[in-house]
Amino acid sequence: MINNSGKINFTIDANDKSSLARATHFQTEHGEIKTPIFMPVGTNGVVKTLTPAELKQANSQIILGNTYHLYLRPGMEIIKKAGGLHKFSSWDRPILTDSGGFQVFSLAHLSQITDEEVVFQSHIDGSKHKLSPQKSMEIQNSLGSDIVMAFDECTPYPCDYKKAREAMKRTHHWEKLSKQHFEKMESAYGHNQFLFGIIQGSVYDELRKESAEYLSKLNFDGYAIGGLAVGEPKKRMFEILENVVPLLPESRPHYLMGVGKPEDIVRAIERGIDMFDCVIPTRNARNGLLYTWKGRIKIKQAQYKDDLTAVDPDCTCYTCQNFSRAYLRHLYKKNEITGLRLNTLHNINFFIELTQQARQALLTDKFDEFRNNFYANYPIEDDHWKQNIKKRKQRRKKHLRENETN
Amino acid sequence: MINNSGKINFTIDANDKSSLARATHFQTEHGEIKTPIFMPVGTNGVVKTLTPAELKQANSQIILGNTYHLYLRPGMEIIKKAGGLHKFSSWDRPILTDSGGFQVFSLAHLSQITDEEVVFQSHIDGSKHKLSPQKSMEIQNSLGSDIVMAFDECTPYPCDYKKAREAMKRTHHWEKLSKQHFEKMESAYGHNQFLFGIIQGSVYDELRKESAEYLSKLNFDGYAIGGLAVGEPKKRMFEILENVVPLLPESRPHYLMGVGKPEDIVRAIERGIDMFDCVIPTRNARNGLLYTWKGRIKIKQAQYKDDLTAVDPDCTCYTCQNFSRAYLRHLYKKNEITGLRLNTLHNINFFIELTQQARQALLTDKFDEFRNNFYANYPIEDDHWKQNIKKRKQRRKKHLRENETN
Repeated sequence: MINNSGKINFTIDANDKSSLARATHFQTEHGEIKTPIFMPVGTNGVVKTLTPAELKQANSQIILGNTYHLYLRPGMEIIKKAGGLHKFSSWDRPILTDSGGFQVFSLAHLSQITDEEVVFQSHIDGSKHKLSPQKSMEIQNSLGSDIVMAFDECTPYPCDYKKAREAMKRTHHWEKLSKQHFEKMESAYGHNQFLFGIIQGSVYDELRKESAEYLSKLNFDGYAIGGLAVGEPKKRMFEILENVVPLLPESRPHYLMGVGKPEDIVRAIERGIDMFDCVIPTRNARNGLLYTWKGRIKIKQAQYKDDLTAVDPDCTCYTCQNFSRAYLRHLYKKNEITGLRLNTLHNINFFIELTQQARQALLTDKFDEFRNNFYANYPIEDDHWKQNIKKRKQRRKKHLRENETN
Repeated sequence: MINNSGKINFTIDANDKSSLARATHFQTEHGEIKTPIFMPVGTNGVVKTLTPAELKQANSQIILGNTYHLYLRPGMEIIKKAGGLHKFSSWDRPILTDSGGFQVFSLAHLSQITDEEVVFQSHIDGSKHKLSPQKSMEIQNSLGSDIVMAFDECTPYPCDYKKAREAMKRTHHWEKLSKQHFEKMESAYGHNQFLFGIIQGSVYDELRKESAEYLSKLNFDGYAIGGLAVGEPKKRMFEILENVVPLLPESRPHYLMGVGKPEDIVRAIERGIDMFDCVIPTRNARNGLLYTWKGRIKIKQAQYKDDLTAVDPDCTCYTCQNFSRAYLRHLYKKNEITGLRLNTLHNINFFIELTQQARQALLTDKFDEFRNNFYANYPIEDDHWKQNIKKRKQRRKKHLRENETN
């Protein structure tokens, strides 16, 4: 079976009347994707601390895998021998793999970058490797993901206009090559793959517009917006979405990469985004931050030491059905791994429930009510977010150590 | 309801014809205990990396909790407010709590020891505390365990005769006080508790005999053998069991504390032991050591990097049913918490299955076949064990850091 992008069978189930929000669905060979959707991140072929069975219980329809990480460890030979990432990791629902671009530019030591390829050194052992549009497609072919991402260059923030433009141009070149190579490849395990393009252009409206228009013509199966949530002001991110999303084909899924906090997800849904991924629920769980419809709880705080209520008494997850804040605090204080699991399970449930409720509201024409309720109860943390650049940098360093990346 | 020890309703279901091995059962208010039984250790009110649901799936009938650790963190106020350790930790099957004696003598900084009490400093923050037979009974009353252990002094190995004798004498005094106090206490949460005595006497047959005879007269609900598996030669341990077990009341459960490896469990069953607890399956799982009927697997070894078979293809645990050695190795190499969980789940399943198969063999008069099969396949590691005193000391240090104790 030869891959053939641009053939996605995509349906819009509902459009909100007062925003760009929409409910959509499409079918992959490992299952249906119903949007808006939150996709848990499984960098190394595992969503940190969880099992496939738990992800299914949390109604996770799709998880991410990471081309860069999986290429380095365990390597493609083992994954191919196992029959692809689904079989290797025992996850039989859809998988989306990123292209490795983001990691090559943020994690690895770049030694050379040309229009043909990137030469880099592994952040693990310094070994030298090359990544190119063709190579990225081949790795993702071996991984056997249901959704393949085109190879792109993700710019950091801040990034001057000239550099942003160069990176965008190169991204366009690479994405075209990605598509050409993708369409020549035979499916490795007999199931069809979709190919998504990635819009770049940093914070420059003109570049973002150019990128959206150029890539839209290439007829990808879906469109991602990359290079956001990398440090730019939150307000800018939403302005860019407002400018870019209307330029994307309506009949394709819209995916905002690496976003985000609950309030960012709701605001991006309003702006026409269908798909999200982020390490926030998993990483923050391991740091004792638990999400509820009324905001975050820092479980280590003394106020929870004898609080025998659930994190969210209305939540149906295993954690909330069985354990109190006092018990979770005890586990956290004692560095018990079970605590990290229970926290992660709850957060993943919350993020998936959030997007599922948004979808339900859209299907029943109650999205306005949903978002008003959400904003009325959930404290938005933009200011906090902006003030803590230093903390964010420290966290970034920590997550590099932990190998968990968007 | 006033506690009243010595009232256990204990039944011998089968006796082996060629050894002291036996299958027995007794009823606690949280469920039946069928022996031989392996009891997973939940030092801090959690079996490391696992959930109660997983322990039930692994057919765990009972888990341990730790008086010393739980008394220090989270403290009895919180546990009492939660309604006991069962409710706090969401485990509704039986719990056995140790007396705190072992930890006070091995973990804490002892500042004073008299015939009345032990004054010690917490290994966590140096805070000063007292533990006495009465206090230990009160803590275990607040924990609400189904099986309470009498307060004892556990001697290290080696220990000279004079010290061993003193510690034994003190242990006898303390256990008598434990029983007296236990029988005056009202059940904290309305369910009955059992009280087990602990035989001490280090490696001295004469002392062990004296201890067994003295404590047998006190009519405890069950009898534990403490102070073994603390570094003495394996051969000595089994000789002591051969001398001591026949002196214990037949109509009471026999519990060998802190043992052990699979081969030690089988050999102790042959010598009349019914109950076991040990951190080996959980701690070793976190170090990548996985148990099978053919011995241990070190999952990090290169030979497993593309081994797509299960750890034990016949094992019915979630790990073996879903994941390959190659995947578990990958998770181990990437320090993925999910790997520690999957390893632990498998090991706990193995240890419980081991004792369940021993029980089944006893009930069907096939114990001889069971043990012959076991010994024919499972490599015994006594020599390895004896040669690695230094390694054992390092591991001991590590486990102190990790707060997991027998």
